[in-house]
Amino acid sequence: MKIGDHVIPFFQGECGTCICCRSQKTNLCQKFGVNPLKSVMVNDGKTRFSTMDGNPIFHFLNTSTFSQYTVLDSACVVKIDTKAPLEKMSLLSCGVSTGVGAAWNVANVQPGSSVAIFGLGAVGLAVAEGARVRGASKIIGVDINPSKFFKGKAVGITEFINPKDLDVPVHEKIGAITEGGVDYSFECVGNLEVLREAFLSTHTGWGLTVLLGIHPSPMLLPLHPMELFNGRQIVGSIFGGFKGKTQLPKLAEQCMCGTLNLDEFITHELPFHNINEAFQLLIEGKSLRCLLHL
Amino acid sequence: MKIGDHVIPFFQGECGTCICCRSQKTNLCQKFGVNPLKSVMVNDGKTRFSTMDGNPIFHFLNTSTFSQYTVLDSACVVKIDTKAPLEKMSLLSCGVSTGVGAAWNVANVQPGSSVAIFGLGAVGLAVAEGARVRGASKIIGVDINPSKFFKGKAVGITEFINPKDLDVPVHEKIGAITEGGVDYSFECVGNLEVLREAFLSTHTGWGLTVLLGIHPSPMLLPLHPMELFNGRQIVGSIFGGFKGKTQLPKLAEQCMCGTLNLDEFITHELPFHNINEAFQLLIEGKSLRCLLHL
Repeated sequence: MKIGDHVIPFFQGECGTCICCRSQKTNLCQKFGVNPLKSVMVNDGKTRFSTMDGNPIFHFLNTSTFSQYTVLDSACVVKIDTKAPLEKMSLLSCGVSTGVGAAWNVANVQPGSSVAIFGLGAVGLAVAEGARVRGASKIIGVDINPSKFFKGKAVGITEFINPKDLDVPVHEKIGAITEGGVDYSFECVGNLEVLREAFLSTHTGWGLTVLLGIHPSPMLLPLHPMELFNGRQIVGSIFGGFKGKTQLPKLAEQCMCGTLNLDEFITHELPFHNINEAFQLLIEGKSLRCLLHL
Repeated sequence: MKIGDHVIPFFQGECGTCICCRSQKTNLCQKFGVNPLKSVMVNDGKTRFSTMDGNPIFHFLNTSTFSQYTVLDSACVVKIDTKAPLEKMSLLSCGVSTGVGAAWNVANVQPGSSVAIFGLGAVGLAVAEGARVRGASKIIGVDINPSKFFKGKAVGITEFINPKDLDVPVHEKIGAITEGGVDYSFECVGNLEVLREAFLSTHTGWGLTVLLGIHPSPMLLPLHPMELFNGRQIVGSIFGGFKGKTQLPKLAEQCMCGTLNLDEFITHELPFHNINEAFQLLIEGKSLRCLLHL
Protein backbone atom coordinates (compact mmCIF):
# COMPACT_ATOMS: atom_id res chain seq x y z
CA MET A 1 0.00 0.00 0.00
CA LYS A 2 1.13 3.56 -0.55
CA ILE A 3 -0.22 7.04 0.07
CA GLY A 4 -2.96 7.85 -2.43
CA ASP A 5 -4.11 4.28 -2.99
CA HIS A 6 -7.84 3.76 -3.20
CA VAL A 7 -8.79 0.93 -0.90
CA ILE A 8 -11.69 -1.03 0.54
CA PRO A 9 -11.44 -1.94 4.22
CA PHE A 10 -13.10 -5.23 5.23
CA PHE A 11 -13.68 -6.93 8.56
CA GLN A 12 -13.09 -10.55 7.55
CA GLY A 13 -9.34 -10.25 7.01
CA GLU A 14 -7.18 -12.39 4.76
CA CYS A 15 -3.69 -13.01 6.10
CA GLY A 16 -2.89 -15.18 3.09
CA THR A 17 -0.79 -17.68 5.01
CA CYS A 18 -2.99 -19.60 7.47
CA ILE A 19 -4.49 -22.99 6.61
CA CYS A 20 -7.86 -21.38 5.87
CA CYS A 21 -6.45 -18.66 3.61
CA ARG A 22 -4.53 -21.34 1.72
CA SER A 23 -7.73 -23.34 1.24
CA GLN A 24 -10.15 -22.65 -1.59
CA LYS A 25 -13.02 -23.88 0.60
CA THR A 26 -13.32 -20.98 3.04
CA ASN A 27 -12.79 -17.26 3.54
CA LEU A 28 -12.52 -17.57 7.32
CA CYS A 29 -8.95 -16.43 8.01
CA GLN A 30 -7.73 -17.94 11.27
CA LYS A 31 -5.70 -14.86 12.18
CA PHE A 32 -8.22 -12.14 11.35
CA GLY A 33 -11.48 -13.78 12.27
CA VAL A 34 -14.67 -11.89 12.98
CA ASN A 35 -14.58 -11.21 16.67
CA PRO A 36 -16.08 -7.88 17.64
CA LEU A 37 -14.97 -8.44 21.22
CA LYS A 38 -11.29 -8.78 20.32
CA SER A 39 -11.14 -5.12 19.67
CA VAL A 40 -7.42 -4.57 19.38
CA MET A 41 -4.87 -4.73 16.57
CA VAL A 42 -3.92 -8.35 15.92
CA ASN A 43 -0.19 -7.70 15.54
CA ASP A 44 0.48 -6.22 18.98
CA GLY A 45 -2.75 -6.57 20.93
CA LYS A 46 -2.99 -2.77 21.39
CA THR A 47 -5.40 -0.11 20.20
CA ARG A 48 -4.66 2.83 17.90
CA PHE A 49 -7.35 5.07 19.40
CA SER A 50 -7.48 6.69 22.80
CA THR A 51 -9.50 9.22 24.69
CA MET A 52 -8.13 12.73 25.34
CA ASP A 53 -6.84 11.52 28.72
CA GLY A 54 -5.10 8.48 27.31
CA ASN A 55 -7.55 5.62 27.91
CA PRO A 56 -7.73 3.12 25.03
CA ILE A 57 -10.73 3.15 22.69
CA PHE A 58 -11.12 -0.32 21.34
CA HIS A 59 -11.37 -1.25 17.66
CA PHE A 60 -14.51 -2.54 15.99
CA LEU A 61 -14.58 -5.49 13.61
CA ASN A 62 -10.95 -5.07 12.49
CA THR A 63 -11.78 -1.85 10.61
CA SER A 64 -13.04 0.89 13.01
CA THR A 65 -14.45 2.92 10.16
CA PHE A 66 -16.91 5.12 12.07
CA SER A 67 -14.12 7.69 12.09
CA GLN A 68 -12.44 10.18 9.76
CA TYR A 69 -9.14 8.31 10.17
CA THR A 70 -8.42 4.74 11.16
CA VAL A 71 -5.63 2.18 11.37
CA LEU A 72 -6.08 -1.30 9.88
CA ASP A 73 -3.87 -4.28 9.38
CA SER A 74 -2.98 -4.71 5.70
CA ALA A 75 -4.82 -8.05 5.87
CA CYS A 76 -8.06 -6.07 6.19
CA VAL A 77 -7.66 -3.62 3.34
CA VAL A 78 -7.39 -4.11 -0.43
CA LYS A 79 -6.33 -1.77 -3.20
CA ILE A 80 -8.83 -1.16 -6.00
CA ASP A 81 -8.88 0.69 -9.31
CA THR A 82 -8.59 4.43 -8.68
CA LYS A 83 -11.37 5.00 -11.19
CA ALA A 84 -13.89 3.06 -9.06
CA PRO A 85 -16.48 5.38 -7.44
CA LEU A 86 -15.44 5.46 -3.79
CA GLU A 87 -18.87 6.24 -2.34
CA LYS A 88 -20.25 3.05 -3.87
CA MET A 89 -17.16 1.01 -3.11
CA SER A 90 -17.85 1.43 0.60
CA LEU A 91 -20.86 -0.85 0.06
CA LEU A 92 -18.42 -3.66 -0.70
CA SER A 93 -16.94 -3.46 2.79
CA CYS A 94 -19.83 -5.49 4.09
CA GLY A 95 -23.54 -5.32 3.25
CA VAL A 96 -23.55 -5.69 -0.52
CA SER A 97 -20.64 -8.12 -0.73
CA THR A 98 -22.21 -10.16 2.07
CA GLY A 99 -25.47 -10.50 0.17
CA VAL A 100 -24.12 -10.88 -3.35
CA GLY A 101 -21.49 -13.35 -2.19
CA ALA A 102 -24.08 -15.43 -0.35
CA ALA A 103 -25.87 -15.87 -3.68
CA TRP A 104 -22.71 -16.41 -5.74
CA ASN A 105 -20.17 -18.13 -3.53
CA VAL A 106 -22.21 -19.83 -0.83
CA ALA A 107 -25.48 -20.85 -2.51
CA ASN A 108 -24.04 -20.80 -6.05
CA VAL A 109 -27.43 -19.76 -7.43
CA GLN A 110 -28.05 -21.31 -10.86
CA PRO A 111 -29.80 -19.81 -13.89
CA GLY A 112 -33.54 -20.48 -13.90
CA SER A 113 -33.65 -21.31 -10.20
CA SER A 114 -35.99 -19.99 -7.51
CA VAL A 115 -34.94 -17.94 -4.50
CA ALA A 116 -36.68 -16.66 -1.36
CA ILE A 117 -35.14 -13.85 0.66
CA PHE A 118 -36.32 -13.20 4.20
CA GLY A 119 -35.57 -9.62 5.28
CA LEU A 120 -35.13 -6.89 2.67
CA GLY A 121 -32.50 -4.66 4.21
CA ALA A 122 -29.31 -3.88 2.30
CA VAL A 123 -28.04 -7.45 2.76
CA GLY A 124 -31.27 -9.09 1.60
CA LEU A 125 -31.58 -6.79 -1.39
CA ALA A 126 -27.96 -7.52 -2.27
CA VAL A 127 -28.83 -11.23 -2.27
CA ALA A 128 -31.59 -10.36 -4.76
CA GLU A 129 -29.15 -8.43 -6.93
CA GLY A 130 -26.74 -11.38 -6.83
CA ALA A 131 -29.51 -13.82 -7.72
CA ARG A 132 -30.70 -11.54 -10.54
CA VAL A 133 -27.18 -11.42 -12.03
CA ARG A 134 -27.01 -15.22 -11.86
CA GLY A 135 -30.25 -15.50 -13.81
CA ALA A 136 -32.63 -16.79 -11.14
CA SER A 137 -36.12 -16.83 -12.65
CA LYS A 138 -38.11 -16.36 -9.45
CA ILE A 139 -36.88 -14.11 -6.64
CA ILE A 140 -39.36 -13.88 -3.78
CA GLY A 141 -38.88 -11.11 -1.20
CA VAL A 142 -40.35 -11.54 2.28
CA ASP A 143 -40.62 -8.58 4.68
CA ILE A 144 -43.16 -7.18 7.12
CA ASN A 145 -42.25 -3.64 6.05
CA PRO A 146 -44.16 -2.97 2.80
CA SER A 147 -41.99 0.05 1.99
CA LYS A 148 -39.18 -2.40 1.16
CA PHE A 149 -41.16 -3.81 -1.71
CA PHE A 150 -40.78 -0.81 -4.02
CA LYS A 151 -37.01 -0.86 -3.64
CA GLY A 152 -36.98 -4.60 -4.14
CA LYS A 153 -38.36 -4.38 -7.65
CA ALA A 154 -35.34 -2.37 -8.74
CA VAL A 155 -32.96 -5.17 -7.73
CA GLY A 156 -34.83 -7.97 -9.42
CA ILE A 157 -37.33 -9.22 -6.87
CA THR A 158 -40.16 -10.77 -8.84
CA GLU A 159 -42.72 -11.43 -6.08
CA PHE A 160 -43.36 -10.10 -2.61
CA ILE A 161 -44.80 -11.71 0.45
CA ASN A 162 -45.77 -9.76 3.54
CA PRO A 163 -46.29 -12.37 6.25
CA LYS A 164 -48.83 -10.03 7.87
CA ASP A 165 -51.06 -10.38 4.81
CA LEU A 166 -51.16 -14.19 5.01
CA ASP A 167 -53.37 -16.53 6.96
CA VAL A 168 -50.96 -19.44 6.44
CA PRO A 169 -47.27 -19.76 7.35
CA VAL A 170 -44.92 -18.17 4.82
CA HIS A 171 -43.40 -21.50 3.86
CA GLU A 172 -46.81 -22.86 2.86
CA LYS A 173 -47.41 -19.86 0.63
CA ILE A 174 -43.98 -20.22 -0.95
CA GLY A 175 -44.49 -23.96 -1.41
CA ALA A 176 -47.76 -23.26 -3.20
CA ILE A 177 -46.30 -20.74 -5.68
CA THR A 178 -43.11 -22.71 -6.44
CA GLU A 179 -44.24 -26.32 -6.90
CA GLY A 180 -42.98 -27.47 -3.53
CA GLY A 181 -40.48 -24.85 -2.46
CA VAL A 182 -37.60 -22.68 -3.64
CA ASP A 183 -34.14 -23.95 -4.52
CA TYR A 184 -32.48 -21.46 -2.17
CA SER A 185 -33.63 -19.38 0.78
CA PHE A 186 -31.71 -16.67 2.62
CA GLU A 187 -32.31 -15.64 6.22
CA CYS A 188 -31.25 -11.98 6.52
CA VAL A 189 -33.06 -11.12 9.74
CA GLY A 190 -31.54 -12.90 12.73
CA ASN A 191 -34.80 -14.31 14.04
CA LEU A 192 -35.27 -18.00 14.83
CA GLU A 193 -38.88 -18.20 13.69
CA VAL A 194 -37.88 -16.61 10.41
CA LEU A 195 -34.98 -19.06 10.16
CA ARG A 196 -37.39 -21.99 10.48
CA GLU A 197 -39.74 -20.53 7.87
CA ALA A 198 -36.79 -20.00 5.53
CA PHE A 199 -35.70 -23.62 6.05
CA LEU A 200 -39.17 -25.03 5.38
CA SER A 201 -39.60 -22.79 2.32
CA THR A 202 -37.05 -24.75 0.32
CA HIS A 203 -37.76 -27.82 -1.74
CA THR A 204 -37.14 -31.18 -0.09
CA GLY A 205 -34.29 -33.11 -1.64
CA TRP A 206 -32.02 -30.18 -2.48
CA GLY A 207 -33.21 -26.95 -0.85
CA LEU A 208 -30.43 -24.85 0.64
CA THR A 209 -30.94 -22.22 3.33
CA VAL A 210 -28.15 -19.67 3.80
CA LEU A 211 -27.94 -17.90 7.16
CA LEU A 212 -26.80 -14.29 7.04
CA GLY A 213 -28.67 -12.78 9.98
CA ILE A 214 -26.95 -12.36 13.34
CA HIS A 215 -28.75 -14.35 16.03
CA PRO A 216 -28.27 -12.74 19.43
CA SER A 217 -30.71 -15.07 21.23
CA PRO A 218 -29.12 -17.93 23.18
CA MET A 219 -31.82 -20.25 21.79
CA LEU A 220 -30.58 -23.15 19.69
CA LEU A 221 -31.50 -23.99 16.09
CA PRO A 222 -35.26 -24.68 15.90
CA LEU A 223 -34.74 -27.80 13.79
CA HIS A 224 -35.01 -31.47 14.67
CA PRO A 225 -32.11 -33.66 13.50
CA MET A 226 -34.52 -35.84 11.51
CA GLU A 227 -35.58 -32.78 9.52
CA LEU A 228 -32.13 -32.83 7.94
CA PHE A 229 -33.02 -36.21 6.43
CA ASN A 230 -35.43 -34.64 3.96
CA GLY A 231 -32.50 -33.32 1.95
CA ARG A 232 -32.78 -29.70 2.98
CA GLN A 233 -29.49 -28.09 4.00
CA ILE A 234 -28.62 -25.06 6.07
CA VAL A 235 -25.28 -23.24 5.98
CA GLY A 236 -23.87 -20.05 7.45
CA SER A 237 -22.21 -17.33 5.43
CA ILE A 238 -19.71 -14.71 6.58
CA PHE A 239 -18.89 -11.85 4.22
CA GLY A 240 -20.56 -13.77 1.42
CA GLY A 241 -17.73 -16.23 1.29
CA PHE A 242 -15.48 -13.61 -0.33
CA LYS A 243 -11.75 -13.62 0.34
CA GLY A 244 -11.30 -9.88 0.64
CA LYS A 245 -7.81 -9.31 -0.72
CA THR A 246 -8.15 -11.92 -3.45
CA GLN A 247 -11.66 -11.25 -4.68
CA LEU A 248 -12.81 -7.69 -3.89
CA PRO A 249 -10.85 -6.00 -6.72
CA LYS A 250 -12.76 -8.09 -9.27
CA LEU A 251 -16.04 -7.35 -7.48
CA ALA A 252 -15.23 -3.64 -7.73
CA GLU A 253 -14.67 -4.07 -11.46
CA GLN A 254 -18.01 -5.84 -11.80
CA CYS A 255 -19.65 -2.81 -10.20
CA MET A 256 -17.78 -0.39 -12.50
CA CYS A 257 -18.79 -2.24 -15.66
CA GLY A 258 -22.41 -2.50 -14.55
CA THR A 259 -22.63 -6.26 -14.09
CA LEU A 260 -23.62 -5.50 -10.54
CA ASN A 261 -25.86 -2.49 -10.01
CA LEU A 262 -25.29 -0.61 -6.75
CA ASP A 263 -27.43 2.44 -7.58
CA GLU A 264 -30.26 1.45 -5.26
CA PHE A 265 -28.30 0.87 -2.10
CA ILE A 266 -27.33 4.38 -0.98
CA THR A 267 -30.64 5.95 -0.02
CA HIS A 268 -29.48 8.90 2.09
CA GLU A 269 -26.58 11.34 2.48
CA LEU A 270 -25.75 13.18 5.70
CA PRO A 271 -22.84 15.09 7.23
CA PHE A 272 -20.55 12.90 9.33
CA HIS A 273 -21.54 14.62 12.57
CA ASN A 274 -25.12 13.41 11.97
CA ILE A 275 -24.02 9.76 12.18
CA ASN A 276 -26.52 9.02 14.95
CA GLU A 277 -29.34 10.24 12.75
CA ALA A 278 -28.08 7.86 10.07
CA PHE A 279 -28.29 4.97 12.52
CA GLN A 280 -31.80 5.99 13.49
CA LEU A 281 -32.91 5.85 9.84
CA LEU A 282 -31.44 2.35 9.64
CA ILE A 283 -33.13 1.20 12.85
CA GLU A 284 -36.49 2.51 11.64
CA GLY A 285 -36.16 0.67 8.33
CA LYS A 286 -36.22 3.94 6.38
CA SER A 287 -32.76 3.71 4.81
CA LEU A 288 -30.60 1.04 3.25
CA ARG A 289 -27.20 2.73 3.51
CA CYS A 290 -26.46 6.38 4.30
CA LEU A 291 -23.40 8.09 2.86
CA LEU A 292 -21.64 10.26 5.47
CA HIS A 293 -19.74 13.34 4.23
CA LEU A 294 -16.93 15.07 6.07
CA MET B 1 -38.54 -58.25 -13.66
CA LYS B 2 -39.08 -61.95 -14.34
CA ILE B 3 -39.00 -65.18 -12.38
CA GLY B 4 -35.45 -66.17 -11.57
CA ASP B 5 -34.01 -62.65 -11.55
CA HIS B 6 -31.53 -61.88 -8.80
CA VAL B 7 -32.56 -58.69 -7.11
CA ILE B 8 -31.80 -56.31 -4.25
CA PRO B 9 -34.79 -54.87 -2.40
CA PHE B 10 -34.33 -51.37 -0.99
CA PHE B 11 -36.50 -49.15 1.19
CA GLN B 12 -35.79 -45.77 -0.43
CA GLY B 13 -37.64 -46.43 -3.66
CA GLU B 14 -37.02 -44.83 -7.03
CA CYS B 15 -40.17 -44.28 -9.08
CA GLY B 16 -38.12 -42.64 -11.83
CA THR B 17 -40.73 -40.06 -12.73
CA CYS B 18 -41.21 -37.63 -9.81
CA ILE B 19 -39.36 -34.29 -9.64
CA CYS B 20 -36.84 -35.74 -7.18
CA CYS B 21 -36.12 -38.87 -9.23
CA ARG B 22 -35.59 -36.66 -12.27
CA SER B 23 -33.11 -34.50 -10.33
CA GLN B 24 -29.46 -35.44 -9.97
CA LYS B 25 -29.35 -33.69 -6.61
CA THR B 26 -31.32 -36.15 -4.48
CA ASN B 27 -32.31 -39.78 -4.05
CA LEU B 28 -35.43 -38.93 -2.07
CA CYS B 29 -38.23 -40.21 -4.30
CA GLN B 30 -41.44 -38.34 -3.56
CA LYS B 31 -43.63 -41.39 -4.17
CA PHE B 32 -41.64 -44.00 -2.26
CA GLY B 33 -40.25 -42.00 0.62
CA VAL B 34 -39.01 -43.51 3.84
CA ASN B 35 -42.04 -43.62 6.06
CA PRO B 36 -42.15 -46.64 8.33
CA LEU B 37 -45.60 -45.59 9.51
CA LYS B 38 -47.12 -45.68 6.02
CA SER B 39 -46.92 -49.41 6.05
CA VAL B 40 -49.01 -50.28 3.02
CA MET B 41 -48.33 -50.74 -0.68
CA VAL B 42 -48.12 -47.34 -2.36
CA ASN B 43 -50.15 -48.34 -5.43
CA ASP B 44 -53.36 -49.33 -3.69
CA GLY B 45 -52.91 -48.45 -0.02
CA LYS B 46 -53.41 -52.09 1.01
CA THR B 47 -51.19 -54.70 2.60
CA ARG B 48 -50.06 -58.00 1.09
CA PHE B 49 -49.77 -59.79 4.44
CA SER B 50 -52.49 -60.85 6.81
CA THR B 51 -52.95 -62.93 9.92
CA MET B 52 -54.53 -66.38 9.75
CA ASP B 53 -57.89 -64.81 10.57
CA GLY B 54 -57.62 -62.15 7.89
CA ASN B 55 -56.41 -59.04 9.74
CA PRO B 56 -53.84 -57.00 7.80
CA ILE B 57 -50.17 -57.15 8.78
CA PHE B 58 -48.61 -53.89 7.76
CA HIS B 59 -45.49 -53.52 5.63
CA PHE B 60 -42.17 -52.29 6.93
CA LEU B 61 -40.01 -49.71 5.12
CA ASN B 62 -41.39 -50.58 1.67
CA THR B 63 -39.62 -53.97 1.69
CA SER B 64 -40.96 -56.19 4.52
CA THR B 65 -38.01 -58.53 4.25
CA PHE B 66 -38.18 -60.22 7.66
CA SER B 67 -40.08 -62.96 5.86
CA GLN B 68 -39.44 -65.90 3.51
CA TYR B 69 -41.63 -64.25 0.87
CA THR B 70 -42.61 -60.64 0.35
CA VAL B 71 -44.26 -58.30 -2.12
CA LEU B 72 -42.56 -55.07 -3.18
CA ASP B 73 -43.30 -52.36 -5.68
CA SER B 74 -40.90 -52.56 -8.63
CA ALA B 75 -39.66 -49.10 -7.58
CA CYS B 76 -38.10 -50.77 -4.53
CA VAL B 77 -36.27 -53.64 -6.17
CA VAL B 78 -33.43 -53.74 -8.70
CA LYS B 79 -32.05 -56.55 -10.82
CA ILE B 80 -28.35 -57.37 -10.42
CA ASP B 81 -25.85 -59.69 -12.07
CA THR B 82 -26.79 -63.32 -11.38
CA LYS B 83 -23.13 -64.04 -10.56
CA ALA B 84 -23.16 -61.63 -7.60
CA PRO B 85 -23.04 -63.49 -4.25
CA LEU B 86 -26.57 -63.09 -2.89
CA GLU B 87 -25.70 -63.41 0.80
CA LYS B 88 -23.41 -60.38 0.51
CA MET B 89 -25.74 -58.48 -1.79
CA SER B 90 -28.29 -58.29 1.01
CA LEU B 91 -25.87 -55.90 2.72
CA LEU B 92 -26.53 -53.40 -0.07
CA SER B 93 -30.21 -53.19 0.86
CA CYS B 94 -29.34 -50.77 3.60
CA GLY B 95 -26.43 -50.80 6.08
CA VAL B 96 -23.41 -51.01 3.79
CA SER B 97 -24.83 -48.85 1.00
CA THR B 98 -25.95 -46.29 3.60
CA GLY B 99 -22.44 -46.00 5.00
CA VAL B 100 -20.45 -46.27 1.78
CA GLY B 101 -22.78 -43.85 0.03
CA ALA B 102 -22.51 -41.33 2.85
CA ALA B 103 -18.76 -41.26 2.22
CA TRP B 104 -19.01 -41.28 -1.57
CA ASN B 105 -22.18 -39.44 -2.54
CA VAL B 106 -22.94 -37.19 0.42
CA ALA B 107 -19.56 -36.20 1.86
CA ASN B 108 -17.65 -36.88 -1.37
CA VAL B 109 -14.55 -37.87 0.66
CA GLN B 110 -11.36 -36.81 -1.12
CA PRO B 111 -8.00 -38.61 -1.31
CA GLY B 112 -5.69 -37.66 1.56
CA SER B 113 -8.47 -36.28 3.71
CA SER B 114 -9.29 -37.02 7.34
CA VAL B 115 -12.47 -38.66 8.61
CA ALA B 116 -13.98 -39.35 12.04
CA ILE B 117 -16.74 -41.93 12.43
CA PHE B 118 -18.88 -41.94 15.56
CA GLY B 119 -20.43 -45.35 16.15
CA LEU B 120 -18.84 -48.49 14.66
CA GLY B 121 -21.81 -50.66 13.83
CA ALA B 122 -22.28 -51.93 10.29
CA VAL B 123 -23.17 -48.44 9.02
CA GLY B 124 -20.16 -46.76 10.65
CA LEU B 125 -17.77 -49.45 9.45
CA ALA B 126 -19.23 -49.12 5.96
CA VAL B 127 -18.42 -45.40 6.10
CA ALA B 128 -14.85 -46.43 6.94
CA GLU B 129 -14.75 -48.83 4.00
CA GLY B 130 -16.07 -46.10 1.71
CA ALA B 131 -13.50 -43.60 3.02
CA ARG B 132 -10.71 -46.19 2.62
CA VAL B 133 -11.68 -46.81 -1.02
CA ARG B 134 -11.63 -43.05 -1.62
CA GLY B 135 -8.08 -42.81 -0.25
CA ALA B 136 -8.69 -40.95 3.02
CA SER B 137 -5.38 -40.89 4.88
CA LYS B 138 -6.74 -40.72 8.41
CA ILE B 139 -9.87 -42.62 9.44
CA ILE B 140 -10.65 -42.24 13.13
CA GLY B 141 -13.19 -44.60 14.68
CA VAL B 142 -15.02 -43.57 17.86
CA ASP B 143 -16.97 -46.10 19.94
CA ILE B 144 -17.47 -46.94 23.60
CA ASN B 145 -17.43 -50.66 22.79
CA PRO B 146 -13.76 -51.65 22.47
CA SER B 147 -14.64 -54.92 20.72
CA LYS B 148 -15.51 -52.83 17.63
CA PHE B 149 -11.92 -51.73 17.29
CA PHE B 150 -10.56 -55.06 16.07
CA LYS B 151 -13.14 -55.23 13.30
CA GLY B 152 -12.50 -51.62 12.41
CA LYS B 153 -8.89 -52.26 11.47
CA ALA B 154 -10.01 -54.63 8.74
CA VAL B 155 -12.04 -51.90 7.04
CA GLY B 156 -9.37 -49.25 7.10
CA ILE B 157 -9.78 -47.44 10.39
CA THR B 158 -6.38 -46.01 11.24
CA GLU B 159 -6.99 -44.75 14.79
CA PHE B 160 -9.43 -45.50 17.57
CA ILE B 161 -10.86 -43.35 20.28
CA ASN B 162 -12.86 -44.74 23.16
CA PRO B 163 -14.51 -41.72 24.80
CA LYS B 164 -14.42 -43.60 28.12
CA ASP B 165 -10.62 -43.55 28.02
CA LEU B 166 -10.42 -39.76 27.65
CA ASP B 167 -10.46 -36.99 30.21
CA VAL B 168 -11.30 -34.39 27.55
CA PRO B 169 -14.25 -34.21 25.12
CA VAL B 170 -13.76 -36.32 21.99
CA HIS B 171 -13.68 -33.27 19.72
CA GLU B 172 -10.73 -31.84 21.63
CA LYS B 173 -8.81 -35.09 21.24
CA ILE B 174 -9.62 -35.21 17.52
CA GLY B 175 -8.66 -31.56 17.10
CA ALA B 176 -5.31 -32.28 18.75
CA ILE B 177 -4.42 -35.23 16.49
CA THR B 178 -5.61 -33.64 13.22
CA GLU B 179 -4.31 -30.06 13.30
CA GLY B 180 -7.66 -28.54 14.14
CA GLY B 181 -10.21 -31.15 13.17
CA VAL B 182 -11.17 -33.66 10.51
CA ASP B 183 -12.48 -32.81 7.07
CA TYR B 184 -15.54 -35.05 7.52
CA SER B 185 -17.33 -36.57 10.47
CA PHE B 186 -20.15 -39.10 10.45
CA GLU B 187 -22.72 -39.54 13.22
CA CYS B 188 -23.87 -43.18 13.11
CA VAL B 189 -25.37 -43.42 16.59
CA GLY B 190 -28.54 -41.34 16.87
CA ASN B 191 -27.50 -39.50 20.02
CA LEU B 192 -27.57 -35.72 20.31
CA GLU B 193 -24.46 -35.42 22.47
CA VAL B 194 -22.58 -37.54 19.96
CA LEU B 195 -23.96 -35.38 17.16
CA ARG B 196 -22.54 -32.27 18.82
CA GLU B 197 -19.15 -33.93 19.36
CA ALA B 198 -19.13 -35.01 15.70
CA PHE B 199 -19.93 -31.45 14.62
CA LEU B 200 -17.19 -29.89 16.75
CA SER B 201 -14.68 -32.52 15.61
CA THR B 202 -14.49 -31.09 12.12
CA HIS B 203 -12.20 -28.30 10.98
CA THR B 204 -13.64 -24.79 10.99
CA GLY B 205 -14.01 -23.33 7.52
CA TRP B 206 -14.92 -26.52 5.66
CA GLY B 207 -15.74 -29.38 8.06
CA LEU B 208 -18.76 -31.43 7.04
CA THR B 209 -20.77 -33.59 9.44
CA VAL B 210 -23.03 -36.22 7.90
CA LEU B 211 -25.95 -37.49 9.99
CA LEU B 212 -26.80 -41.16 9.55
CA GLY B 213 -28.11 -42.06 13.00
CA ILE B 214 -31.83 -42.11 13.67
CA HIS B 215 -32.74 -39.62 16.40
CA PRO B 216 -35.84 -40.76 18.27
CA SER B 217 -35.62 -38.02 20.92
CA PRO B 218 -37.92 -35.01 20.39
CA MET B 219 -35.00 -32.74 21.36
CA LEU B 220 -33.87 -30.28 18.70
CA LEU B 221 -30.41 -29.90 17.18
CA PRO B 222 -27.93 -28.98 19.93
CA LEU B 223 -26.35 -26.25 17.81
CA HIS B 224 -26.61 -22.48 18.00
CA PRO B 225 -27.26 -20.69 14.69
CA MET B 226 -24.07 -18.68 15.11
CA GLU B 227 -22.08 -21.91 15.22
CA LEU B 228 -22.91 -22.34 11.54
CA PHE B 229 -20.92 -19.18 10.84
CA ASN B 230 -17.64 -20.92 11.52
CA GLY B 231 -17.91 -22.71 8.20
CA ARG B 232 -18.82 -26.12 9.57
CA GLN B 233 -21.75 -27.80 7.83
CA ILE B 234 -24.13 -30.54 8.80
CA VAL B 235 -26.23 -32.60 6.39
CA GLY B 236 -28.48 -35.63 6.62
CA SER B 237 -28.09 -38.75 4.52
CA ILE B 238 -30.72 -41.34 3.61
CA PHE B 239 -29.54 -44.57 2.01
CA GLY B 240 -26.16 -42.96 1.37
CA GLY B 241 -27.60 -40.76 -1.33
CA PHE B 242 -27.88 -43.76 -3.67
CA LYS B 243 -30.68 -43.93 -6.22
CA GLY B 244 -31.46 -47.60 -5.83
CA LYS B 245 -32.54 -48.63 -9.31
CA THR B 246 -29.99 -46.45 -11.07
CA GLN B 247 -26.93 -47.02 -8.92
CA LEU B 248 -27.11 -50.32 -7.01
CA PRO B 249 -26.20 -52.56 -9.98
CA LYS B 250 -22.86 -50.76 -10.28
CA LEU B 251 -22.34 -50.96 -6.52
CA ALA B 252 -22.92 -54.72 -6.75
CA GLU B 253 -20.26 -54.90 -9.49
CA GLN B 254 -17.83 -52.97 -7.31
CA CYS B 255 -18.34 -55.59 -4.62
CA MET B 256 -17.84 -58.46 -7.07
CA CYS B 257 -14.58 -57.05 -8.43
CA GLY B 258 -13.23 -56.35 -4.94
CA THR B 259 -13.19 -52.54 -5.07
CA LEU B 260 -15.46 -52.69 -2.07
CA ASN B 261 -14.75 -55.42 0.47
CA LEU B 262 -17.82 -56.81 2.23
CA ASP B 263 -16.08 -59.79 3.88
CA GLU B 264 -16.12 -58.26 7.34
CA PHE B 265 -19.77 -57.35 7.60
CA ILE B 266 -21.50 -60.72 8.01
CA THR B 267 -20.36 -61.87 11.43
CA HIS B 268 -22.97 -64.55 12.21
CA GLU B 269 -25.20 -67.10 10.51
CA LEU B 270 -28.39 -68.50 12.07
CA PRO B 271 -31.51 -70.36 10.95
CA PHE B 272 -34.39 -68.07 10.06
CA HIS B 273 -36.48 -69.21 13.04
CA ASN B 274 -33.73 -67.83 15.33
CA ILE B 275 -34.31 -64.29 14.03
CA ASN B 276 -34.93 -62.96 17.53
CA GLU B 277 -31.56 -64.28 18.65
CA ALA B 278 -30.02 -62.43 15.70
CA PHE B 279 -31.62 -59.21 16.88
CA GLN B 280 -30.33 -59.82 20.39
CA LEU B 281 -26.76 -60.15 19.08
CA LEU B 282 -27.24 -56.82 17.28
CA ILE B 283 -28.66 -55.09 20.34
CA GLU B 284 -25.77 -56.32 22.47
CA GLY B 285 -23.24 -55.02 19.96
CA LYS B 286 -21.88 -58.52 19.33
CA SER B 287 -22.73 -58.79 15.65
CA LEU B 288 -22.63 -56.55 12.60
CA ARG B 289 -25.00 -58.43 10.33
CA CYS B 290 -26.35 -61.96 10.75
CA LEU B 291 -27.20 -64.10 7.73
CA LEU B 292 -30.48 -65.97 8.23
CA HIS B 293 -30.90 -69.33 6.47
CA LEU B 294 -34.19 -70.96 5.60
